Amino acid sequence: MPSVDRRGFLKVVLGVTPAALAGPASAQNLAGEEWERVYGTGFAPYGERSRFEQPVVRYLNQPYGSLAPGSGAAYSPLESLEGIITPSSLHSIRSHSGTPDIDPKRHQLVIHGLVAQPLTFSIEALSRYPMVTRTHFIECSGNSNRGLAPKPLQLPAGAIHGNMSCTEWTGIQLRLLLEEAGAQPQAKWLLAEGADSAHMSRSIPMEKALDDALIALYQNGERLRPEQGYPVRLLVPGYEGNMNVKWLRRIKLVETPMYTKDETSKYTDLLADGRALQFTFEMGPKSVITKPSSMMKLPSRGVYEISGLAWSGAGRVRKVDVSTDGGTTWREAALTGAERPKAFARFRLPWRWEGGEANLQSRTTDEKGNVQPARAAWLAQYSPGNSYHNNCIVTWAVAADGSVSHVYA
Amino acid sequence: MPSVDRRGFLKVVLGVTPAALAGPASAQNLAGEEWERVYGTGFAPYGERSRFEQPVVRYLNQPYGSLAPGSGAAYSPLESLEGIITPSSLHSIRSHSGTPDIDPKRHQLVIHGLVAQPLTFSIEALSRYPMVTRTHFIECSGNSNRGLAPKPLQLPAGAIHGNMSCTEWTGIQLRLLLEEAGAQPQAKWLLAEGADSAHMSRSIPMEKALDDALIALYQNGERLRPEQGYPVRLLVPGYEGNMNVKWLRRIKLVETPMYTKDETSKYTDLLADGRALQFTFEMGPKSVITKPSSMMKLPSRGVYEISGLAWSGAGRVRKVDVSTDGGTTWREAALTGAERPKAFARFRLPWRWEGGEANLQSRTTDEKGNVQPARAAWLAQYSPGNSYHNNCIVTWAVAADGSVSHVYA
Repeated sequence: MPSVDRRGFLKVVLGVTPAALAGPASAQNLAGEEWERVYGTGFAPYGERSRFEQPVVRYLNQPYGSLAPGSGAAYSPLESLEGIITPSSLHSIRSHSGTPDIDPKRHQLVIHGLVAQPLTFSIEALSRYPMVTRTHFIECSGNSNRGLAPKPLQLPAGAIHGNMSCTEWTGIQLRLLLEEAGAQPQAKWLLAEGADSAHMSRSIPMEKALDDALIALYQNGERLRPEQGYPVRLLVPGYEGNMNVKWLRRIKLVETPMYTKDETSKYTDLLADGRALQFTFEMGPKSVITKPSSMMKLPSRGVYEISGLAWSGAGRVRKVDVSTDGGTTWREAALTGAERPKAFARFRLPWRWEGGEANLQSRTTDEKGNVQPARAAWLAQYSPGNSYHNNCIVTWAVAADGSVSHVYA
Repeated sequence: MPSVDRRGFLKVVLGVTPAALAGPASAQNLAGEEWERVYGTGFAPYGERSRFEQPVVRYLNQPYGSLAPGSGAAYSPLESLEGIITPSSLHSIRSHSGTPDIDPKRHQLVIHGLVAQPLTFSIEALSRYPMVTRTHFIECSGNSNRGLAPKPLQLPAGAIHGNMSCTEWTGIQLRLLLEEAGAQPQAKWLLAEGADSAHMSRSIPMEKALDDALIALYQNGERLRPEQGYPVRLLVPGYEGNMNVKWLRRIKLVETPMYTKDETSKYTDLLADGRALQFTFEMGPKSVITKPSSMMKLPSRGVYEISGLAWSGAGRVRKVDVSTDGGTTWREAALTGAERPKAFARFRLPWRWEGGEANLQSRTTDEKGNVQPARAAWLAQYSPGNSYHNNCIVTWAVAADGSVSHVYA
């Protein structure tokens, strides 16, 4: 894997002269600003971001408007973020009836159905169990369906592809709790139900529950945020977002899928031949360049870093290839975080923009050998009416004036 | 390394019967709460935590009170947190003259002194450089000096040991910028100076600057928080906290240390023989059990997880041993995150509390073979007046009634 660590790369790799980006310094640059001459503000018990960063917010997608302001999604502003961890305040959200205001002292998780002993767990009891800490992405299966509009939408990267995020989760392995309840052999599925007023529900294969599913209590070090399922959510790493049931109130062990409203009216994939696929749980290999990306403008020729996010529901990202000529030639990017399965990896490739047109693309290959598909190949599989599991390659076009736009290629 | 992943461990390892923590469930448990019958709240552009979590705040240590409310420290509430990442809003702070309110469009970083070409960098220019993403702890060299009081202070773990935190940082390798400025061979040190009104300054060895030092712009995915150096800070991983100069305004390359006020009036270690050590940069191997910890009370006999944080300024944590009998016998804990150098690792060990007295301790060994010292051994090295680099083993005493207190052992 290429490294951005090597010394002298500004000159050697990019051929730029020193001071290509910086300006010369003089004593005037050290005169000091007004904030260096006044005593600063005191400590806050719970900190806030800078007032200069307030414009960085989620993109709200509320199809029912004020009638149902919490039904829909909120997208992470990917193009303003860096690294791998999504700050909890900017984590993407997909909710079906708003965010409930749950008292953790009263909330209970019930495990029942095909078990030796139905059990109820308070949050206090759950907090005593052995835990694990893992970094995982959650992506809505409808993420990037804005990339299926007849003409490419001119929106920031996050407003198109930001219905996904990646954070550090801490919780209990679900199999511990199933073991404690005494799961019966005929239990091949489980129903997971949320405590929102929609009672959002999905059927989860027992095999997944016994593999790497978590009962998550903490996110990025603190208790889950309400919009992420406070005080407890299901985590089924790599599976489509809505299956990670928030505000989890019960798990019922059953023999067959329950065909809940949420998995029949939605979340099925219309194929080109008119059939629909159901229970397409795993999110495919995918990537998106966040910098440079649509709606940005490159201020001048010279050095840039092409940087973005890559992930796969099947496991680890093996490599990310980047093209600046619309897929004719590819270079392998450097990766950070690729040792973690079902998590974002950050990819980076230094790039010298000569001032001409360039079509930027990225392509993920995961550890199972799955490759992110080209747009035409992806489209050929599905009906034009399908709006789920779009993981095709994204193209950002850089114009000669440095403006970046969203194109289909 | 032991794993908490194995199946059946509740029964096999701990010998507990099923339903040891959970209660039996009946239809009554599924009746539903009031929040399941009302539509929830809508999406927020920038999310907040639950109103039920508001009591989780930093512990403020403001020795000059309202005269200088931003001089001192704010400690992370370790005992309420989980995992590895510290949420930015609860990251520990050590500041010398409050938090400046810096306009990122006006702030500049200057590199000057023994260079071929003095340079000035705007935040916009810095944002174009190739970046790296790494997870690192920052610990104040005065952390845990509250553990040196004549009698053990009865405070929560975070109020004693929380002057440290660990987050994901994204920024530019300092050596790239030094290369661009043309560092001269006689430059063996650099002065790093902040844009706070104290102009907090430290001398940094050039060797460290060329090794793994970063010019950090992002923390946990978003731009640095003001209290963590917005818009740009120095990161010298593993070195004492104050050297990670916040609000970085200049780096001057010099031949010898500058002996700034911040490294002569403070941050020297008084030895038992009356001498003082200066420039003891690296933070030693250390750990603290966060759960159970002082001021907590175990509600009943039975299963608990002993969980905490371990780290070393020298590199990776190799292992953490845990004792429940004050250091007579030790068991090796499971680790998460130990693949990352100069970062927190989370350690975990399942424990069955039988109702008697227990003295809980943890001990880190790092990849260089450095071992966290016992309290008596640590104290023997230093003058009673020393208040820096306390990395000795911490003891939490569990009483027969389940109450946990801070003791010296």
